[in-house]
Order: sequence, then C-alpha cells, then structure tokens
Amino acid sequence: MYAIGLDLGGTNIKSGLVHKTDGIIANNSSPTNAQNGLESTLTTLTKAIKELQYHSDNDICGVGIGAPGMISYDRKTVHNPPNLPGWDVVPLADELTKRTGLPVLLENDANLMALGSARFGSGKIHDNFIMITLGTGVGGGIIYQNQIFRGVTGAAGELGHVTIDYNGRRCNSSVTGAIEGYLGQRFLSSIAVENILNYPDNELFKAFTGKFETLEPLHLTNAAEKGNTLAIEILHDAGKQLGFALVNYIHILDIRKIIVSGGVSKAGKWILDAAYETAMQQLMPPFKTDFEIIVESLGNEAAVLGAASLALDNF
Amino acid sequence: MYAIGLDLGGTNIKSGLVHKTDGIIANNSSPTNAQNGLESTLTTLTKAIKELQYHSDNDICGVGIGAPGMISYDRKTVHNPPNLPGWDVVPLADELTKRTGLPVLLENDANLMALGSARFGSGKIHDNFIMITLGTGVGGGIIYQNQIFRGVTGAAGELGHVTIDYNGRRCNSSVTGAIEGYLGQRFLSSIAVENILNYPDNELFKAFTGKFETLEPLHLTNAAEKGNTLAIEILHDAGKQLGFALVNYIHILDIRKIIVSGGVSKAGKWILDAAYETAMQQLMPPFKTDFEIIVESLGNEAAVLGAASLALDNF
Repeated sequence: MYAIGLDLGGTNIKSGLVHKTDGIIANNSSPTNAQNGLESTLTTLTKAIKELQYHSDNDICGVGIGAPGMISYDRKTVHNPPNLPGWDVVPLADELTKRTGLPVLLENDANLMALGSARFGSGKIHDNFIMITLGTGVGGGIIYQNQIFRGVTGAAGELGHVTIDYNGRRCNSSVTGAIEGYLGQRFLSSIAVENILNYPDNELFKAFTGKFETLEPLHLTNAAEKGNTLAIEILHDAGKQLGFALVNYIHILDIRKIIVSGGVSKAGKWILDAAYETAMQQLMPPFKTDFEIIVESLGNEAAVLGAASLALDNF
Repeated sequence: MYAIGLDLGGTNIKSGLVHKTDGIIANNSSPTNAQNGLESTLTTLTKAIKELQYHSDNDICGVGIGAPGMISYDRKTVHNPPNLPGWDVVPLADELTKRTGLPVLLENDANLMALGSARFGSGKIHDNFIMITLGTGVGGGIIYQNQIFRGVTGAAGELGHVTIDYNGRRCNSSVTGAIEGYLGQRFLSSIAVENILNYPDNELFKAFTGKFETLEPLHLTNAAEKGNTLAIEILHDAGKQLGFALVNYIHILDIRKIIVSGGVSKAGKWILDAAYETAMQQLMPPFKTDFEIIVESLGNEAAVLGAASLALDNF
C-alpha cells in the first residue's frame, strides 16, 4: 500500500510517495511561494500530489499533510497558519480532494514527526513515547497506545510551552519560563552569548566578537568537543533544564521513552547526558524504571513519512 | 446495579454500598489498625464488605478499593503502601475475592477521586477533565474520554510532582520546585509562617506567636475574609503557582476543565481566582477556549463513590 505525504512549510513544500513498509519511493520539493496567496499554493500542492501519482500503479490510499497552524479536530481544516499569509480558515483537505480525487487528512507537523518515528523511525519498537523536537522552537508529539494522543481538540502535546521556572525567561511562548525559552535554537544561542560575554579570554568570545548574532548551538557543540569548559557548562545547563521538562511530561503521562529529534538534538551527549542525569535524580522512583532518552534515527524525511503514515493509518 | 467501594487509609477504612444512579445507600468506617499487620487489616476489610453485602438483595457486581502505594497495571496487587507497615507486595484483590466471593479491583486513591467525580460529582457532565486534589499532598487524576487516563503502567497523573521552578523549594516530592511544595497543606502553611514572621504587626503574627506550627491554610482563608492583606497575598501567590501548574497540564494534555477538590480547595476564590487569572494570561490562545476551574461538589464521600465506580464500570 502506498500513500502520499506532504510537508507544507512556509518556504518549501516537501512531498513523498511512501510505501507502507519500504518507506519513501520517490520524493520532491518545491517552493511554497506563500506570498502568491492561497490559490497559488493550492495549485503547487495539487501538482506535487499529481506528480507522485504517476510513480505508482494506482494503489495510493490517500494523502496526509503536515501543516502549520491549528488543525480542526476532524483533520480537514487549517486555521490561521502563521507562515501562510491570507489563509485564514481553509478547508484544505476537501479542496485537495476536489482537485486530485484522493482522500486527504491534515495534522500538526510535530505530531506527524512523532507518527513518522512510530511507523518508520526509532519509535517503531515502542507503543508509547514522547517525541520532543528541538529546533527553532521546541515542539512535541505524544504517541500513546501506538496512536497520536490528541487531547480534546487535537492540540495536545505542546511540550515546548511547559514552564520549568514561573519566574523565568520569556520567549515567544505565552508561558513565562517555558522550556522553549531555554532550548529553542535562538534562545539557547542568546543564553550562550550572555554567558560568553563574561569571559573575554574564552575562545568563543574571541571567535565571535563582532558577530555574536551568528553563534549557533552547533558552535557550542564543536567547542565542547574541543574541551571548552564554558561551552560544556552552557550545554549542561540546557540539558538540566530539559531534564526537568521531561520529568513534568513523565509524571503527568506515565510514558517513559523520550525520542529527541531536531537540530539541537545534534548536541547529543552534551545536552542529553545532563537531561538524563537530571531526570533520574528528579523522577519518583517507580518512574525511573524503563526511562530512556533516544535520538531519532530519521532525519528530515520524518515529516513526509509521518504525513504519509497519517493516510496509511486512516485510509 | 450495586457495588461496594472501600477507601483504605492508614487510619480508617471507609466503606459504602453504592447504587449505580442513586449513589451511597449505606456506609461505614472502621479503624485500619495498621500496626496489627496485614492479616488483621484483611480481616477488617472482609468484615466491611460482608456487612454491606447484607444491605442489598444480592445484585452486588463487585468491589472497588482505593489504596495507597503503587497498584499493578492489572489493578490486583498493591506494592509498598506507605502507611501500611509490613505489606510489601500484596495480591489484595485476590485475597479479598477468596474471602468474599466478589470480584475486586484496586486503584490509586487520587484516580478514584476523579472517577467518583466523573460518575457522581462535578465531573459528571464532562467527558474530559483534570482533577487536582489539594490536601496534605497534591494529587491528581486525569479523566480522558470518560475513563481514567492510566499511562503505560497505570501511574499517570502524578500532578503534584510537576515542577514550576527548577531552582525552587524542595518538599517530600523528589522534584525540586514541585507544585506540591507550594500548595500541599503543610508547605503552604510553612510558606505562610515564613512570610508572617516578617510582619510583627499583622494580626496573624499576634494570633500565632508561640504556636506557629498550628497555623493552617484555613486560618489564612479566615484572615483573608476579614481583609488581612498579607493573608490575601499569600493565598494569591499560591494561586498564581497553581495557575502555572495548570498551564503545564493543559498544554500537554489539551484537557481544559480543571476540577479541584481537597481541604485547601476550600480557600476558594482566594486561591482559585488567582489560578484562573494566571492561567488565562499564560495559556496559548487556542487553549483559553473552554478553560474552566470547577470546585468539586462531592465531599469525603468521593473516594468511596470512586472506588465503587471502578467496580460498576468493570464488572
């Protein structure tokens, strides 16, 4: 069985023809050109679907789409997607069915990353896990009993917007001290710069003077690998903060497998070891059993695989 | 249909014969006498069940028991209940079935408070809610799609052990800055005393000098009712902290009805108004819709009703 998965981003539309067991058979990417408005993007999406239809011998069960913004509970309509100006409320699934003849479902992109992991990635062997995506923002998806845990309206799993310090930092979350304000790429970078500015002798200070705005978590990881203790400390602090957020998720959900994906997760042991140690100190004893942090094995293809999985699961 | 509900506490065993729609038909209470050991407590539990059997015309479907400690996922065995010395691992359900001929299930007491609310209390009209019990400790139960949300091992809903300040107070939770350390009765009282000691002119200072250890949240509520601004401020701070914990639950679970029970919830508006305001400031916009804090209408009988509901739901 085949399905088509689409990842609708503000910049690019990624698409893939996915086989239930073999994964991605063919894939593509085209610019979203969001500035050209809704109708133009609908045409691009339709074209992406039709191109992949030609690759298969007609047993495509349907289309899954990872979309930004709020998705309706029936997974048919998208509300006010942030990077798609002028979209407002769009019955995207029905519009694309009309144009392609295929059934279509939508889902929030972080949830689909988790579903992609559950069907094709590190989550395949786990019926229950929490995926946390450490990228520009911090997102998440909860897989419970092998399905996306959706909550009452389909909005569950806003894991980046969980506070660990109610007197803490503000970020673009509405929540003071939200974990996104510590681990989100831009926020981690600016915390690092705040620290580095106090140590003019540090190699990072010297390397980034005059261009601190270009410092990224990857530079911290590289410095840590070379033994830069300040970088190690900054990443360790971030890991400790992540560890507290994990404790909050685990004590609420009693789901103890954590799968980490996204750019910042590449900081690997420098963040994740501290997160693990902190959580093992802080978890109530019964919750330590089976607690594990796992790095997602899939890369960027997780979003398209997750989108196609939505169709494979439902059609 | 009838069931028997038991609330097995370290001090007393409360029991009730419960009708599916009419609620408690007869009830009882006897001392646990935990110091006399397991066999003695089993005898007391058996007697409590048999006494209530005589009240009905034999259509009792089974027995539900709210127990402390960890409950096995099959709800048959209790592990190391804190207030029952010498219990270790006890196959309590099977032991009582052997003695009474009735099927028996166990569940954690906070989860049963939530189930009692769902079947007989303020939760009756809601398919999804989060119950938070503000008593000696802070506990919780999650009702999702009209059932207890159990997680992977049955331990979900440890809502008191969620941090709101990872540099914050330690309490008897393993978690630094856990909400229990702010709202648990003893902790709220000691935070209050710390504050009151700074204000020798305050009525609370005068009233409790020499006996600060007797101050309880109820005294704060009474003082607040009389316009004591220090008491109002202390309760407001506690409410603000509670509000942040609610935001964490809601952003993870997407369940927006909060039902509050337990002694500290009697501080009513002094705590809950601040919790509501804080959560409305901090929640992401879509989560504000339908957000509500509801005070549980049931009193102490909730535990027995919840225990009986476990049997009514499952047998």
